[in-house]
Amino acid sequence: MASDVLERFRPLFQPRSIAVVGATDNVFKLGFHALTAVTAAGFEGEVFPVNPNAGEEIQGLKAYRSIRELPRGVDLFIYAIPERLVVPAVRESVEMGARAGVIFAGGFRETGPEGLRLQEELVSIAEGGGMKIIGPNCIGIVNKHARLNATFASPLAWFPEGNVSVVSQSGGMGNSILNELMDEKVGISKFISIGNRANVEFSDMVEYLSEDPHTSVICLFIEGLDDGGSFLKKARAASRRKPVLVYSRGYTASSSRTALSHTGSVASSEEVYRGAFLQAGLLQVHSGSEMAATCKALSMGGMPAGDGVFISTHSAGPVVAICDICERGGLRFPPLKPEVARAMASFLPEHAVATNPLDMFAFAWTDTTLYLRAADLALGQEDIHCAMAVFVTGGGAGPVFPSREYADIGRKHGKPVFLCLITPCALAHEIAEAQSHGVIALSSPEKAAQVLVNLKRGRSLLLREYDGTASFR
Amino acid sequence: MASDVLERFRPLFQPRSIAVVGATDNVFKLGFHALTAVTAAGFEGEVFPVNPNAGEEIQGLKAYRSIRELPRGVDLFIYAIPERLVVPAVRESVEMGARAGVIFAGGFRETGPEGLRLQEELVSIAEGGGMKIIGPNCIGIVNKHARLNATFASPLAWFPEGNVSVVSQSGGMGNSILNELMDEKVGISKFISIGNRANVEFSDMVEYLSEDPHTSVICLFIEGLDDGGSFLKKARAASRRKPVLVYSRGYTASSSRTALSHTGSVASSEEVYRGAFLQAGLLQVHSGSEMAATCKALSMGGMPAGDGVFISTHSAGPVVAICDICERGGLRFPPLKPEVARAMASFLPEHAVATNPLDMFAFAWTDTTLYLRAADLALGQEDIHCAMAVFVTGGGAGPVFPSREYADIGRKHGKPVFLCLITPCALAHEIAEAQSHGVIALSSPEKAAQVLVNLKRGRSLLLREYDGTASFR
Repeated sequence: MASDVLERFRPLFQPRSIAVVGATDNVFKLGFHALTAVTAAGFEGEVFPVNPNAGEEIQGLKAYRSIRELPRGVDLFIYAIPERLVVPAVRESVEMGARAGVIFAGGFRETGPEGLRLQEELVSIAEGGGMKIIGPNCIGIVNKHARLNATFASPLAWFPEGNVSVVSQSGGMGNSILNELMDEKVGISKFISIGNRANVEFSDMVEYLSEDPHTSVICLFIEGLDDGGSFLKKARAASRRKPVLVYSRGYTASSSRTALSHTGSVASSEEVYRGAFLQAGLLQVHSGSEMAATCKALSMGGMPAGDGVFISTHSAGPVVAICDICERGGLRFPPLKPEVARAMASFLPEHAVATNPLDMFAFAWTDTTLYLRAADLALGQEDIHCAMAVFVTGGGAGPVFPSREYADIGRKHGKPVFLCLITPCALAHEIAEAQSHGVIALSSPEKAAQVLVNLKRGRSLLLREYDGTASFR
Repeated sequence: MASDVLERFRPLFQPRSIAVVGATDNVFKLGFHALTAVTAAGFEGEVFPVNPNAGEEIQGLKAYRSIRELPRGVDLFIYAIPERLVVPAVRESVEMGARAGVIFAGGFRETGPEGLRLQEELVSIAEGGGMKIIGPNCIGIVNKHARLNATFASPLAWFPEGNVSVVSQSGGMGNSILNELMDEKVGISKFISIGNRANVEFSDMVEYLSEDPHTSVICLFIEGLDDGGSFLKKARAASRRKPVLVYSRGYTASSSRTALSHTGSVASSEEVYRGAFLQAGLLQVHSGSEMAATCKALSMGGMPAGDGVFISTHSAGPVVAICDICERGGLRFPPLKPEVARAMASFLPEHAVATNPLDMFAFAWTDTTLYLRAADLALGQEDIHCAMAVFVTGGGAGPVFPSREYADIGRKHGKPVFLCLITPCALAHEIAEAQSHGVIALSSPEKAAQVLVNLKRGRSLLLREYDGTASFR
């Protein structure tokens, strides 16, 4: 079963060879960007540019004037051609043994009855040849682990490698989520823009990613589902193995009209989707930014075992915001036990009271070891399941938060540690540095609090069979 | 009246000379960072380090062993000393003619009755000498237009100069808002962390900033108000002259407990505050990120004259998200008039339908002039009050959105133009570039939509007497 779905999609995600149909030297054509994307990503298999109008070479590679001239058995076909040429090209490819395809062109189901007919013809040809098609009307796929960028956007290969995979109906929205992940310093495994879903559905991708050893967290952006039943079944199975996050849009009159003419999907009522996602064990989020931040904590194995949070700070204002959001989200700040409070009081600065949340004033900004000593004591208390430190960056001109030692304290207690490092994105390398040690770092109090709330929501949803805490490093 | 409040706070915001009490060469002391902050910001007046244990110099400046040794009439005193030394130091300063002070130390009102007594003594001394005090228990103030950084954090001087001023009870939360503004490529005018508010209140700062010619938008972070009546009166007057945004926290049990022990404030019920803010004409936001993005549009004069939005895109997914948020926020996407639609249809790519929102598919990504021609036609329609283009960055390896020409079209029609430029913060220079031409650029669909919604909310609130549209460039 496992190997089955991985093998079925191997030609798509791990092709040995790629044909780019419509490849060209003309920078104003999509076919130029499609070929560039493949080669710039450092793909190591053979690449075959195809264009009937080509000379000897395209972008320095030997050019083929037709699909029939190609050697048999090319794995993946990327079609960067207008929609009226797509059906004949796919037919020829199937005859040449194609196993997988990516079709960028719009002009299919999303345009009405005529387009729907064209898409049905496409599906019938592909199915006849056992060919899996991503799109039409999409921006394609990326697999960092295979140096594969089968899109028309070279920058999509620049995202760092990691264990998060993103499936999006929309290329643009998928791109937006990838950007948020990049801003959070989270690496990706696979990106899949599935567009009109000729014969590859959300359910297929969820099943594939749940088996994929390079994926630890699955992120979905959904504008509407055709295969609701099948999707929910596969999603439920997936969410028992890995966290699955879902962000869904298209619930108002104007947005659902746009979604319909987009990838031919009709979103149903928001309530129906919400209930279905919940039943399937999917963690619903409400923006790309929230998805990325939550996904980061999950991808780092940061699921606390319970609702008790210990917060320490040198600046109370951000904690006021964090408490507002956390308390409304059902989290608790357990009081410190008398012996813990006594031990803490022995080293706290004047006027600081050993309580939770703990404010150590600017003293802790200059003497950052206070954070370490306080967290070590608090995490020893059994009703406290994680710690969050709040720290305003010194920006290289002031103190630096001791992330390495803080992470060690988390590991010692087997509990995740979070850092709300208040920093502009110009200093986001400090976020990456903290994460390299195992501290889950967020750049604003609102985001930090929302992540804790989402982890709480996720605990009951995601962990019915999958024990997320076990993966905590 | 106008010159009155400006003159009253001149020694604070435009001091001719500064004394740093507690200045030192010891990098582990706050007094080190306080002096560094003043000098590193490039302050052009005289700076006097004061420390009884000093040698001849501190950080290369002539050192003074006591406040009494200083020349008379130093404008601003920065106290980087423990709280037990504060009262005597302020008394001496007043005797030496001090006009303004910044006190970092905690240990006053926020710690209980004894601290409250100490703060009352402090206020009485200051008031007796006509001295304005920021703090205690704060991180101080910044005035970019006077190269003044009277905090203990050098990086606060690095924020670019602009026309937005921020007043925050909390230094940390103020810092978080400044970071969000920096990420949005918005420059600041003044930053004021007012802490315990000895004798400078929110109401004073709102009045001052409403008169300040360098401030176009006022941002407030409030954990609780003591001077509710006076504040609302001054805020109402200010919001008739300039947009005033407010972000308020401290409404749950844990957060109000933290706020109380923070700057001695008690937040009241959220509903009470919400109603009061609304009455005073303040635009309430719910995160630092939302504040920064909204503030940016206002600071660029981007208030549309009505609710009609024209959206154009090469990627429909982000528009689905934008429509969801905008439609729920009461915005409209007026249908294109037949003659506008006809004119647009003449140049749109195959399958693209001349409608609002307008999807031009990937064609518009390679031929970006489509955005310009579409916006020019749509903005000519009188029930359309602004345009938003959605564009996924080419990241330097693909097409670039034509911001300069797009801004020109906005100016031609006298209507603001927005760009949802989907980009990671690593490429935020593209945001800055777009803004330099007059395009209001936001990096995610959710943020872009929320800004439009907030401008709509603000239109009825802020513009009762102040005509924001007139300031559109």
